[in-house]
Amino acid sequence: MPRTHHTERHFTASETVRDIVIGMSDGLTVPFALAAGLSGAVASTAIIVTAGLAEIAAGSIAMGLGGYLAAKSDAEHYAKEQRREQKEVAEIPEEEMEEVAQVFRAYGLTTEQVAPVVNALSKRPKAWVDFMMRFELGLEEPKPERARTSALTIGGAYMAGGLIPLFPYIFINSAQEALLVSIAVTLAALLIFGYIKGRFTTAKPLRSALETALVGSLAAGAAFLIARAIS
Amino acid sequence: MPRTHHTERHFTASETVRDIVIGMSDGLTVPFALAAGLSGAVASTAIIVTAGLAEIAAGSIAMGLGGYLAAKSDAEHYAKEQRREQKEVAEIPEEEMEEVAQVFRAYGLTTEQVAPVVNALSKRPKAWVDFMMRFELGLEEPKPERARTSALTIGGAYMAGGLIPLFPYIFINSAQEALLVSIAVTLAALLIFGYIKGRFTTAKPLRSALETALVGSLAAGAAFLIARAIS
Repeated sequence: MPRTHHTERHFTASETVRDIVIGMSDGLTVPFALAAGLSGAVASTAIIVTAGLAEIAAGSIAMGLGGYLAAKSDAEHYAKEQRREQKEVAEIPEEEMEEVAQVFRAYGLTTEQVAPVVNALSKRPKAWVDFMMRFELGLEEPKPERARTSALTIGGAYMAGGLIPLFPYIFINSAQEALLVSIAVTLAALLIFGYIKGRFTTAKPLRSALETALVGSLAAGAAFLIARAIS
Repeated sequence: MPRTHHTERHFTASETVRDIVIGMSDGLTVPFALAAGLSGAVASTAIIVTAGLAEIAAGSIAMGLGGYLAAKSDAEHYAKEQRREQKEVAEIPEEEMEEVAQVFRAYGLTTEQVAPVVNALSKRPKAWVDFMMRFELGLEEPKPERARTSALTIGGAYMAGGLIPLFPYIFINSAQEALLVSIAVTLAALLIFGYIKGRFTTAKPLRSALETALVGSLAAGAAFLIARAIS
C-alpha cells in the first residue's frame, strides 16, 4: 500500500469549505425563515424585501466580522501561549521536561520509555516549544491571512445564500404567491447544499441533505407561526 | 512553584462559555441591526416587532439546530476515524508504528530516540489508538451530551441577546424614538458582553468591548442604509 494513499484517506474539509458551510447554512436559513414569517403577517412584498435585505446585510457583516475577530483572537492566543512556552523552556526547563513526560504518561508510558524523547527535545528549544503547543495545549498555528479570508468567505456565503429565498419576493407582487415559490426554490437549494456539505464533511450526503432542509423548514415554520400569532 | 498553579495559567474558555459567546454575539447584533434597518424604512413599530421576533425564532433555531448537527457530525467523524485506527493497529501494526515515529520526526527526533515510545505504545493497543487520534489526527473525543447541550445553549443565548434590542420597540410607539432607546440599550449590552467575552477569551477585555460594539454598529448601520435606500 503506497504511503500517499494511506495519508489521503483521513480527509477533512478544508478551512475554505468550512467557512462556506458556516456562512451558507445560516444564509439560506434565516433570511428564508424571516421572509416566510413576514408573509404570514404582511401582504406587501416591499416590506419583506426591505427586511430581507436588511437582514442579509446585518447577518453577513455580523458573521463575517465576527469570524474575523475570532480568527484574530485565536492568532493572538496562540502567540501569547507560544511566548509563555518559550519563556518556560528557557527559564524552568526541568518543569517543562516533566510536562513532556506527563503528556506520554497519560498513555501509560513509563518515565524510562519517554526519557530519550524528553532529552532529545530539551536539546532543540524551537522544536520543543512547537511540541508543547500542539501536544500539551492542543493548539494549531493559525495561518497569517486566515482572518481576512475567513471573514470574506463567511460573509459572501451568507449573502449568496440569503439572496436565493428573497428573489421570488422581488419579482412577485403577492406575498402568498412569492412565499410558495420561495419555499420551493429554497428547499431545493437546502437539499443541494446539504448534499454537497455532506459529501465534504461526512460519508452520508443524503442524510445531510434531509437534515439541512429540515433545519430550514423548522426555522421558517417557527418564524411563520410567531409572526402570524402577533400580527 | 506549585504544580496546580502552573497548570491553571493556561486558561481556555469552557465549551459552555464558547457556546454562549457564539449565540449572543449574533443574537445581540442581527436582530438589533434588522430593527434599526426597518426603523429607517417603516414608521410602525408593530412590523418591526413582528420581523424582530420572527428573526429571533429563525436565528435561534438555525444556530441551535445547526450547532446540534455540527456536534453530532463531529462525534460521528471521531467514531469513524477511531474504528479505522483500531483496524489499522490490529491489521497493519508496522505501518502504524512508522506513523507514530513520523509524528516525532516532524520535531527533529531520530528513529532511535523514539523507538522506546513506539515499542511501548505497540504493546498497549487502546492507548495506541488514543495516541493516534490525538497526535496524528489532532482529534479530541467529543463528550456524549455535547450536541444537545450545545444546541440549547447557543439557541438560548441567541434568543436572550435578540430580545434586548427589541424591547424598546414593544413599549414605544414611535419607531424613531424606539430606535434611539434600542441603540443606547444595545450598545451598553454589546460593551458589557464584549468586556466579559474578552475576560474569558483574551487578555484585552476593553478592546474586546469596543470591537464587539463596533461590529454591532457596523451591521446596524449597513442594515439601516440599505433599508432606507430601497424604501
